[in-house]
Amino acid sequence: MSARRQLHLNAFLMEAGHHEASWRLPDSNPRADFDLRHWIELAQLAESAAFDSLFLADGPALTGTGEFRPPGQLDPLTLLTALSQATSRIGLIATVSSTYNEPYDLARRLASVDHVSGGRAGWNIVTSAGASAAANFGLDGVPDHAGRYARADEFLRVAKALWDSWETEAVVADKASGRYADPARLHRPDHRGRYFSVAGPLNVERPPQGYPLLVQAGSSEDGRDFAARHAEAIFTAHTTYERAADFYGDIKARARAAGRDPDGVIVLPGIVPYIGSTQAEAQALAQQFDDLRVPAYGLRQLAAVFETEPSSFELDEPLPDFILARPELEGAQSRSDLIIELAVREKLTVRQIISRLGGGRGHFEFIGTPDQVADTITAWFEGGAADGFNIMAPALPSGLETFVEHVLPILRAKGLFREAYEGTTLREHYGLAVPANQFHQARQPDQVH
Amino acid sequence: MSARRQLHLNAFLMEAGHHEASWRLPDSNPRADFDLRHWIELAQLAESAAFDSLFLADGPALTGTGEFRPPGQLDPLTLLTALSQATSRIGLIATVSSTYNEPYDLARRLASVDHVSGGRAGWNIVTSAGASAAANFGLDGVPDHAGRYARADEFLRVAKALWDSWETEAVVADKASGRYADPARLHRPDHRGRYFSVAGPLNVERPPQGYPLLVQAGSSEDGRDFAARHAEAIFTAHTTYERAADFYGDIKARARAAGRDPDGVIVLPGIVPYIGSTQAEAQALAQQFDDLRVPAYGLRQLAAVFETEPSSFELDEPLPDFILARPELEGAQSRSDLIIELAVREKLTVRQIISRLGGGRGHFEFIGTPDQVADTITAWFEGGAADGFNIMAPALPSGLETFVEHVLPILRAKGLFREAYEGTTLREHYGLAVPANQFHQARQPDQVH
Repeated sequence: MSARRQLHLNAFLMEAGHHEASWRLPDSNPRADFDLRHWIELAQLAESAAFDSLFLADGPALTGTGEFRPPGQLDPLTLLTALSQATSRIGLIATVSSTYNEPYDLARRLASVDHVSGGRAGWNIVTSAGASAAANFGLDGVPDHAGRYARADEFLRVAKALWDSWETEAVVADKASGRYADPARLHRPDHRGRYFSVAGPLNVERPPQGYPLLVQAGSSEDGRDFAARHAEAIFTAHTTYERAADFYGDIKARARAAGRDPDGVIVLPGIVPYIGSTQAEAQALAQQFDDLRVPAYGLRQLAAVFETEPSSFELDEPLPDFILARPELEGAQSRSDLIIELAVREKLTVRQIISRLGGGRGHFEFIGTPDQVADTITAWFEGGAADGFNIMAPALPSGLETFVEHVLPILRAKGLFREAYEGTTLREHYGLAVPANQFHQARQPDQVH
Repeated sequence: MSARRQLHLNAFLMEAGHHEASWRLPDSNPRADFDLRHWIELAQLAESAAFDSLFLADGPALTGTGEFRPPGQLDPLTLLTALSQATSRIGLIATVSSTYNEPYDLARRLASVDHVSGGRAGWNIVTSAGASAAANFGLDGVPDHAGRYARADEFLRVAKALWDSWETEAVVADKASGRYADPARLHRPDHRGRYFSVAGPLNVERPPQGYPLLVQAGSSEDGRDFAARHAEAIFTAHTTYERAADFYGDIKARARAAGRDPDGVIVLPGIVPYIGSTQAEAQALAQQFDDLRVPAYGLRQLAAVFETEPSSFELDEPLPDFILARPELEGAQSRSDLIIELAVREKLTVRQIISRLGGGRGHFEFIGTPDQVADTITAWFEGGAADGFNIMAPALPSGLETFVEHVLPILRAKGLFREAYEGTTLREHYGLAVPANQFHQARQPDQVH
């Protein structure tokens, strides 16, 4: 193996693709979201290419009205559990909300996925900003941003204590004496906090990875602070190298300030690649997607981001002044700020904005040849803007196949990406250790079984 | 196929077996609970024998202290999801609490398991009486029995509305026009009740079975009423034919009174079979289990049932008077009543009681030859005490293997049990239809896509 620092690649999967109109492509399976065969094909493709992991975004509510785009998705932990049985090495990262779950239940489910997958579970921790999610869980409004992050922080502390509640040596299983476990090595966290009271111990043995890989994607101040304390991998969206490099430096500095090794916080910006064998072919591919968009859908999405009505916009005009002038929305600044910045910088009309958002939802879209994609990835990686990438194919499986067949060989030739897996767990792929158990105490030899 | 009424068989699985000391047997895997290969072996064995389903009990808390018996278990829905990928026909029934879950989340997860398993999910609905579960979910005490059942009833009504929220024809997926779904066929339950406020729609398409198979196991008055309203299969524990026949008649009458077809409520008592080629061999097998019990564990279990201390009991005396004289405990009457009734009827000492509880926890233990087991099953089935059985092998996999190899052929020769699956879904195995969708309205032809 090359001693060179290695890229980390995560396959961010989404129904028929990340582009909003992907389901309309002639080869697309428009019912991909509930068709397990589709997901198995994608997972096996990503594993055959030795991706570190695959990833599913999520929110506990219907997405939009369903009129123009598939609005549902299988529960991501359930889907990843099924995929764990069709794969053997690739990491499996699910988005789950800390706002709409209970720590005992979710810690148990994540530990269970880690067990049945042989140490391949990852948790993308989200606090769920949407009003539609709140309405599905008995709330009349979304809990405030700071409160959601305070709950998330306490949630993580409880979950870690639960995952630690079985010491590795807790189970003796001495058939001769009938002694099964050492109760002194099964710990009760007995947590009593602002949001949760949880006795424990967990009823699942410590997972193979200690904790599932902890992932985070919020880029607000609260989100970055949370990431610096807890996250081991960070998914992020930047449309320029400069923005990505700023974010990368900021996160590493915060991790250092929190007393952590900055190399233990893997930063993964998203990239939506439109790949062609020539620049013209790549442009034509991107245009094919653009032509399939339904403008009414884009207007609704844009209106939702700015919490206004679709009628506030004129397709062939710039963003209206009341949006350009408004202050940051609490907690949502990354998304709306990115759009305003992009629109102003490139002097885009509303039609052009929704065209740009149709593919990557604020992520970095790149149109080019395999060499250009590989060179851009290399430049961000070596220039201090990324430890790897979230690969967001505009159409699935085709966009991922193209990336695997045409871009990966170039990255491998540069010595930047593995030819095959070296480890078996998600933490091993990302070069991260199993966390120490907070309850573990060294025993005298005569106390050790 | 024989036109004769058919037995339904459910493989109730539990770590190394249902007997509390099963993990101590020479051939047992004492780490079975977190070893996926163990569960896959059991699931494939049960499927090879064309069992209707397999089943996992559960509670969201550690079971006991762990000192004498494995105290944990993988999250059952996660485990069944993994098993769904190692099997193709057998039904998969998980116990999940309606007290410690949210309907939107659980309805989604159950629907997702039904999708990835191709219509094989079942839900054993429990209300979780234990104090240790309450303490893991922020409660200082267990919610009262009637309140738990009221919540369960509302939970079921919300879950059914969510499973119905996508009409079968909701997805149009018209690539040419860009129209994905018909919003008029995606319904918002907008439920506002005593326990829950849930907007919807669910973000998962209606599951293949409409609803997962709905199973219930409580035998209190509240439990029986709930079962008569909602349950399609009922797990129950009776130590005599007479008790089982009484329960069977009562449940069928309640179902009829609730306006349901009593044949749509499948009653499945548990049986713990100790099988030998002669009666003496079967007795020796049962004795082998009994000899492995740790009496201190049995005393603790007995004390927990009667909410007292282990020191209240003398091993070689009958149950103490204060227990024989006390009134029924709210909600727990089935378990403690069964024990008192058994102890009085057979004049058992405490040592004998805990010996009897070690295997079946109040279920029907039967020691005999394959012919005797098959004859007993047939007698209960034909005599109006059962529609089938919950097969609870004292050791796993060995006890299930013996049942499959030696008892099933006898039942098949009698024409009482299928040779092979005829359907592909759990509902088909149990002879139950997909429920009608409460939101479905017939459209005029010109409105139908």
